[in-house]
Amino acid sequence: MPGGERRLVAAEGARPPLYVAILAGGSGTRLWPLSRTERPKQLLPLAGERTLIQQTLDRVTPLVPPERVLVLTERSHADAVRAQLPEVPAENVVVEPARRGTAGALALAAFIVAQRDPRSVVANLSSDHLIPDSAEFCRTLEVAAAAAADGTYLLTLGVQPTYPSTQFGYIQLAERITEVDGYPVYRVARFVEKPERPIAETYVRDGQHLWNSGMFIWRVDASLTQFRELMPHLYSTLEPLAPLLGTPAGDEALAAVYPTIEVQTIDYGIMERAPNVAVVPARFAWSDVGSWGELYDVLPKDSNGNVIRGLHLTLDTHRSLIFAEPGGRPVVALGVDDLVVVDTPDALLICSRQRTQEVKQLVEWLAGDPRFSDLL
Amino acid sequence: MPGGERRLVAAEGARPPLYVAILAGGSGTRLWPLSRTERPKQLLPLAGERTLIQQTLDRVTPLVPPERVLVLTERSHADAVRAQLPEVPAENVVVEPARRGTAGALALAAFIVAQRDPRSVVANLSSDHLIPDSAEFCRTLEVAAAAAADGTYLLTLGVQPTYPSTQFGYIQLAERITEVDGYPVYRVARFVEKPERPIAETYVRDGQHLWNSGMFIWRVDASLTQFRELMPHLYSTLEPLAPLLGTPAGDEALAAVYPTIEVQTIDYGIMERAPNVAVVPARFAWSDVGSWGELYDVLPKDSNGNVIRGLHLTLDTHRSLIFAEPGGRPVVALGVDDLVVVDTPDALLICSRQRTQEVKQLVEWLAGDPRFSDLL
Repeated sequence: MPGGERRLVAAEGARPPLYVAILAGGSGTRLWPLSRTERPKQLLPLAGERTLIQQTLDRVTPLVPPERVLVLTERSHADAVRAQLPEVPAENVVVEPARRGTAGALALAAFIVAQRDPRSVVANLSSDHLIPDSAEFCRTLEVAAAAAADGTYLLTLGVQPTYPSTQFGYIQLAERITEVDGYPVYRVARFVEKPERPIAETYVRDGQHLWNSGMFIWRVDASLTQFRELMPHLYSTLEPLAPLLGTPAGDEALAAVYPTIEVQTIDYGIMERAPNVAVVPARFAWSDVGSWGELYDVLPKDSNGNVIRGLHLTLDTHRSLIFAEPGGRPVVALGVDDLVVVDTPDALLICSRQRTQEVKQLVEWLAGDPRFSDLL
Repeated sequence: MPGGERRLVAAEGARPPLYVAILAGGSGTRLWPLSRTERPKQLLPLAGERTLIQQTLDRVTPLVPPERVLVLTERSHADAVRAQLPEVPAENVVVEPARRGTAGALALAAFIVAQRDPRSVVANLSSDHLIPDSAEFCRTLEVAAAAAADGTYLLTLGVQPTYPSTQFGYIQLAERITEVDGYPVYRVARFVEKPERPIAETYVRDGQHLWNSGMFIWRVDASLTQFRELMPHLYSTLEPLAPLLGTPAGDEALAAVYPTIEVQTIDYGIMERAPNVAVVPARFAWSDVGSWGELYDVLPKDSNGNVIRGLHLTLDTHRSLIFAEPGGRPVVALGVDDLVVVDTPDALLICSRQRTQEVKQLVEWLAGDPRFSDLL
């Protein structure tokens, strides 16, 4: 493995084309009752008028034309994804026949892009993250793409921890291997699964750990090499289909074999085990909007510390998130602090702002109660 | 004025007939958003399946047949009142042509009952109070009726204060004038308007003050004597119409003159100034349901101290009132304490349980904002 400082040779003109693969599978329950099985959070306008997936596309538009944007989603969300992203060519919206975790989705994206240009760099991005500073995001993405351009490293973006989260995985930094446009790039020592609180506290303090943002940037041939080495069954299942992908025959073949592949995350399947992983520390604010509390944290607040959407009247109300759907009922709040109120046409959530991580469990309870089965 | 112990001479057979006049005017805004201008709290099922006005009728049924129950209401509520109280003869539902306060309504009731039997005793009751113990209420009402039967005193029921309310008027006791069936009856020294908190605290401690419940029991001729003395304009306006009341000509005449009478409460117009007022201390629990907090106080609680109506799932939620309409949306609460949540199809209230007295002001704000004008 290469180590130490290394000169990036990819000059502007010689750089391989950049593709973006947006992962839009999954159905978050943590933003219930706004998010539902059939209306996952990436399809919701949680911050502003555009949905999270639209904002994800908007964010990369300065770098990548829509023809080089793939979106991986599942059957039940495909129509909504196409409707929300009319700029993306229909053939670039790839429907996974089943949910097999992020490893399957990113391997699929890699095989599709490899058919177009095996030396392309693919930035694999989540469709449901919030990153307010698009310009800084683009700069960071360009750094990662440059660092990935010679195929030596698989790149990831690491987020500076702002609190000892036990909800994120962490990336431990090893030595600095290069610097691009003033951004250092480090080899990754290891990935750490969601830690216990005391461990997370040491990570925040030690300056050697970043949050794993789930954004991965790699040259497509380099990634396929690792899929072949580390996930041989996945690789050998998809590889024969690659030339057909995007055709009816390919779709049919994919539908037949995709459900047989192992359900696995890209983190466990590749990133934690590949020998050549590097990370660019991100300087932008980032949230995976994993709970209403995290959404509150990342959105701008009024002078009372409130984040309020929808028609409302509040009096002596502080540090609260009130989220009503446009055209919904007025919410009137009086003397309320640190509360999350989410008002939808068929369900109402009232939750301590400190307890929103538990909404996920609450939804599991709801799922077990036939009185609430319409609400999932 | 009579004073000291006095023997009640009205034996069972000799007692004058008892009438009940239920006051169902007014439009409470303090239970917004459930109560509205066109849907005041007496017409709502706040405690159980029957509405407050239905419960008011149910409560007196053991003492008074529906033919001797009058209901005074306003035009916009008359149909709802008749629909909710089918037992009460249509001609006993009296529509006030305008809102002139409780003095006008009770004078009207007195003139109507006087046409039937001027020696009747009338119990004037509010339609929107909660009194869980109907049997004790009936016993107390019989005591007051007996004490009123000879026409010497105008009776009121006083409620033992359980906290230093600044929302109620108080009645200061003078000497004990008699006892009926083990219930003492006191002459009233004076009525006190809603006091400041420190004054209210002394009232609660001194044993000499009761809450003014707004329930008045008197022989109808005795009350008309006081109306003639103390509210001569009201008396002389209504007196000529009395024989016609209940006929189309009477209704027309009433519509012409009723708006000209002074807007006044019976408390200020008569009770505070009449020389012959007496009070029976009530032993029953009573609430005028003047706020969501008071409704919470009076309703039975679950093991977490919650009062919840409607489909719901709660986790770690305590001392809260959650009020959803039947068939409404499920309310899911997590980690919430001391909160009032009132969910209606077109408005949602979230309020600290300690601040529900301020809902009234909130509604005044809403009234001044055209965005909310549909919600009043």
